[in-house]
Amino acid sequence: MKMIRSIKEMSGFSAEARARGKKIGFVPTMGALHAGHLSLIRKARRDNDLVVVSIFVNPLQFGPAEDFRKYPRNSAVDAWLCRREGVGVVFSPGAKEMYGAGHRTFVEVAGLSDGLCGSFRPGHFRGVATVVLKLFNIVSPDNAYFGAKDAQQAAIIKKMTADLNLPVRIKVLPIVRDADGLALSSRNRYLDRLQREQALCLFRCLREASRMVRAGERDLSRIKEVARRLISVCPQAEIDYIEIVDPLTMLPLKSISKGKCLIALAVRIGKTRLIDNITLDVK
Amino acid sequence: MKMIRSIKEMSGFSAEARARGKKIGFVPTMGALHAGHLSLIRKARRDNDLVVVSIFVNPLQFGPAEDFRKYPRNSAVDAWLCRREGVGVVFSPGAKEMYGAGHRTFVEVAGLSDGLCGSFRPGHFRGVATVVLKLFNIVSPDNAYFGAKDAQQAAIIKKMTADLNLPVRIKVLPIVRDADGLALSSRNRYLDRLQREQALCLFRCLREASRMVRAGERDLSRIKEVARRLISVCPQAEIDYIEIVDPLTMLPLKSISKGKCLIALAVRIGKTRLIDNITLDVK
Repeated sequence: MKMIRSIKEMSGFSAEARARGKKIGFVPTMGALHAGHLSLIRKARRDNDLVVVSIFVNPLQFGPAEDFRKYPRNSAVDAWLCRREGVGVVFSPGAKEMYGAGHRTFVEVAGLSDGLCGSFRPGHFRGVATVVLKLFNIVSPDNAYFGAKDAQQAAIIKKMTADLNLPVRIKVLPIVRDADGLALSSRNRYLDRLQREQALCLFRCLREASRMVRAGERDLSRIKEVARRLISVCPQAEIDYIEIVDPLTMLPLKSISKGKCLIALAVRIGKTRLIDNITLDVK
Repeated sequence: MKMIRSIKEMSGFSAEARARGKKIGFVPTMGALHAGHLSLIRKARRDNDLVVVSIFVNPLQFGPAEDFRKYPRNSAVDAWLCRREGVGVVFSPGAKEMYGAGHRTFVEVAGLSDGLCGSFRPGHFRGVATVVLKLFNIVSPDNAYFGAKDAQQAAIIKKMTADLNLPVRIKVLPIVRDADGLALSSRNRYLDRLQREQALCLFRCLREASRMVRAGERDLSRIKEVARRLISVCPQAEIDYIEIVDPLTMLPLKSISKGKCLIALAVRIGKTRLIDNITLDVK
């Protein structure tokens, strides 16, 4: 496995691999790898000749009051996991390498970035779109893999890729959960034992909401009301949002009708902000 | 010479050419080609194995009160000129092909886009950066060629290319002028005979300003004052701006010192907005 820190070396390596007809699968991460990331890496291995994993905690997508500094970093374990999974290259540039002096170019996916997490984390998705575009240009993958837990992010990356005519196929893979239902996230490491237990309310709430929809409930406010109540029983839980949206536009639905809908929520457990979602196919 | 209108066909053609080891030179234009464009095409031919010229009047870079509708279009003559110059592909997509339903991704080069033309044409450079990025992704050139007349545009494209790690080299070629000094522009076609004569005031003013600098004048306000006077003698001329800026940041200079400076201006002659500039190397 190759460890690369320079942009020039990474793009040179990719260009050479492509010239030799190799198909490149790319998994962009912020490190602190968990089984969710590993599911992306395994799929990338099955689909491609070479897998590149980037590990870069992107300062541009953190707000000034957010957890950029304390975001978990564990490059030795990450590298060990990548090697075990047959990754070809780990690309982990420094912040100076990625954002040289005077970086001032930004990508915005208007509309899609406004609601849900976008309204609680201004500038977050601009930072995500910009770094992903940069990484695509450096790694030039054939396929890139994202987790469905970050549903809004995945929708934005897909739209950006289509709008900007990027020659990359975006694959979004299902959320990986712990046995008790908690969606895997690098931020779960922040939780103490009590908080870890309370964090189960996110999935419990999604499960109950989808049970209601499947049972024929069509009143959005009633579903959200029940969902809110299931969260509010946890003393340390604070809701950022619970929304039922169109999974393509990320806009709140006015009514539930045939087709796909996404129930998404963000909840703070103590100081830790967690997100989760579930997609329903309403018949 | 190949005429291509579909994005898919264009990107397929480019991918195949690159796979055969061909170097691609790209000249993005809005058509209505003149000798300035031809100088870019000739340079592209000398540097590359294949030249792609795009002809696309980009709605995204025109303001609502601007000349998008009446912008000169003459595809037959443009195609004839391209064929004569040995162009390999003319890529001329329609607006629907370039901006499908719901296009919502935009690129912004912050700061560089604010002053000069940016302050008179809000959104203009966002439209330029976005379409150029899309075209780069579709055509995937090795080299791309731009004219120095659009100095701010060239600075923005260069910065975007560096910031987004695009695998394209940007080449900026000198302004081509008519024998009497008028910078070539597709918009010169709007001028009647009297206006054509008055339009000479732009270059006259740049020449006088640079003569002053070369003669040792270092007072910026005195130089701008003389420049303004040379424009104001033309009854139909209205100044948008005359500025002396750093050619990299496009920010107004506080004083003239050793190094490069750019004198740039935008002047309306009747309803026609013309721009011109000159770069000085102060010893």
